[in-house]
Amino acid sequence: MTDTGRTGTRSGSGGPDAAALLDRAHAVVAPRLRADLATLPAPLRRVAMYHFGWEHADGTPAAGRAGKAVRPALVLAAARAMGGDPDAAVRAAAAVELVHNFTLLHDDIVDEDRTRRNRPTAWAVFGVPDALVVGDALQALALPVLAADPHPASAAAAARLGACVVELCAGQQADCAFERRDPLDVTLDECLAMAESKTGALLGCACALGALYAGAGEAEVAAMDAFGREAGLAFQLIDDLIGIWGDPVRTGKPAGADLAAHKKSLPVVAALTSGTAEAAALAELYGRPVLGDKDVALAADAVERAGGRDWAQAEAADRMARAVHQLSCAVPDLAAAEELLALAEFVTRRSH
Amino acid sequence: MTDTGRTGTRSGSGGPDAAALLDRAHAVVAPRLRADLATLPAPLRRVAMYHFGWEHADGTPAAGRAGKAVRPALVLAAARAMGGDPDAAVRAAAAVELVHNFTLLHDDIVDEDRTRRNRPTAWAVFGVPDALVVGDALQALALPVLAADPHPASAAAAARLGACVVELCAGQQADCAFERRDPLDVTLDECLAMAESKTGALLGCACALGALYAGAGEAEVAAMDAFGREAGLAFQLIDDLIGIWGDPVRTGKPAGADLAAHKKSLPVVAALTSGTAEAAALAELYGRPVLGDKDVALAADAVERAGGRDWAQAEAADRMARAVHQLSCAVPDLAAAEELLALAEFVTRRSH
Repeated sequence: MTDTGRTGTRSGSGGPDAAALLDRAHAVVAPRLRADLATLPAPLRRVAMYHFGWEHADGTPAAGRAGKAVRPALVLAAARAMGGDPDAAVRAAAAVELVHNFTLLHDDIVDEDRTRRNRPTAWAVFGVPDALVVGDALQALALPVLAADPHPASAAAAARLGACVVELCAGQQADCAFERRDPLDVTLDECLAMAESKTGALLGCACALGALYAGAGEAEVAAMDAFGREAGLAFQLIDDLIGIWGDPVRTGKPAGADLAAHKKSLPVVAALTSGTAEAAALAELYGRPVLGDKDVALAADAVERAGGRDWAQAEAADRMARAVHQLSCAVPDLAAAEELLALAEFVTRRSH
Repeated sequence: MTDTGRTGTRSGSGGPDAAALLDRAHAVVAPRLRADLATLPAPLRRVAMYHFGWEHADGTPAAGRAGKAVRPALVLAAARAMGGDPDAAVRAAAAVELVHNFTLLHDDIVDEDRTRRNRPTAWAVFGVPDALVVGDALQALALPVLAADPHPASAAAAARLGACVVELCAGQQADCAFERRDPLDVTLDECLAMAESKTGALLGCACALGALYAGAGEAEVAAMDAFGREAGLAFQLIDDLIGIWGDPVRTGKPAGADLAAHKKSLPVVAALTSGTAEAAALAELYGRPVLGDKDVALAADAVERAGGRDWAQAEAADRMARAVHQLSCAVPDLAAAEELLALAEFVTRRSH
């Protein structure tokens, strides 16, 4: 999940307002995060405060906001859905957000991304060494925050979050490895597994931690994790569709940006592995070092004619259906889970 | 502490044999570490097994050994010194070693070091992205290993280790920042603080965790931490002396290697900030992009004549005295702490 700064408005379903849920999550978690960052030595704190959008590069206060707070909102909503007190889960929500931001800092270094949330990335401003150690420090803040929490679920939550970090690392490793491989050599199953690790795992962990903090049993925690993972995959598929077909106004990315960058996103891999004539044409285009506007348009057409667009849309719908099924296993009366449904809808609905 | 592969032999004091203590620590901690690494997904495990010296780059078993196990030995010896059972502290010892190795993986990337323990570094073999995420994964293994430990001290130990990681990050950040600054602009106090964070903090934390696992009180844990920190600084000072005056046979480094690399080690900074005529000569030499053999010899002479060598030797002796004093605060009958003394002597005696 790449936090490209897309913003949502009100839910159309008449249920809870996702934007309000995100605002509320941000309001309760931000003070906790600021308190955690305040414990960092000054040179590290400065980079962290910049990354979170709370300071400019020169250390003066900034009005920015650290991402949309999707993961903290999932932790709190999952706690509520399982009959728990969301206020008791604020430390868990903060820990998940610290982990998310540590991976963003490191992924931006490895991917050489120079822009995030419409600002230069931390490594682009402060250099690779500083951004790297600040990522390390954020991880170091996250896990003891949980371990030291007197809540009875905290040790299990720390173990789960640690395992999730390993999975995030594996997902990032696979992503980098795919970029180095022959495009025709990466299977769709490998790609889905990578997306599940890189994007789904932390969304699933957020939901699982909320459930753990509500005192849920093992089966409910596992179902909550699966809900978050499936919703995360649906999000990734739709994010990948937006990366090819727009819309640039809401995303800040031109249509075709992912194609111009030769990204092996899910619709592209589906097309490349379709065994169609268009797959070969697409592979030929991806073999060129630079794609002009006309080539990008040809590549988008090839993905569509090879079935990549339809597959991704159907797969996203299927994943959302599976997500809701898993949620119903954890929360038989789905009315109690309407916040989670609103958040899942929020992160996935922005393709239309 | 840079693990340059220097090896020691028997203690001359008639007390416990440090080499045997290290071997024993390695023997009990290695199976725990191998079990932890076995939980990693295969592509991450491969890099980790290579880094620890247990596999070649192609995945075949290697006879190597992951460092000298100084930190695990300190955890176990500290537990014993405080009247605890070292066997109960094996998880803590493994967690400290995981943290140490995560920092080595990341430091080698940032410092662009291509050799460690006489082998190519992980990033040099597997690339920066893989080495970076494997470092992240090792940290993620370390803290939950502690948090999930049913031992009553585990939560306090996890909090302490997390705080130590932040301090290690700050030390690494300061080290990189110093390299970018004007040599005459870095004070000796800043340099000592950096060395304490980068080298002393984890040695101190190792001793503190051993004490915590033995059920020691707050004052004893703090004194044990201070013992490890002071011994770590003594080690760093002596390591810096070796980096200038040898000996190349035992270190694998030519005499003067740190000078040729323009390293702002402690004796160099002491010389540069001495206000002597030799300080200016040394600054002039350090301003040159490349130092030939003759320049390196001149620089070594300048450090010596500016008092850098004498200062470092006196400071190392003073730090060792402080270390022993702190140890006596934690363990009034120093006979019970003879293992810790042997280990401290081992890491610091190799200058002669």
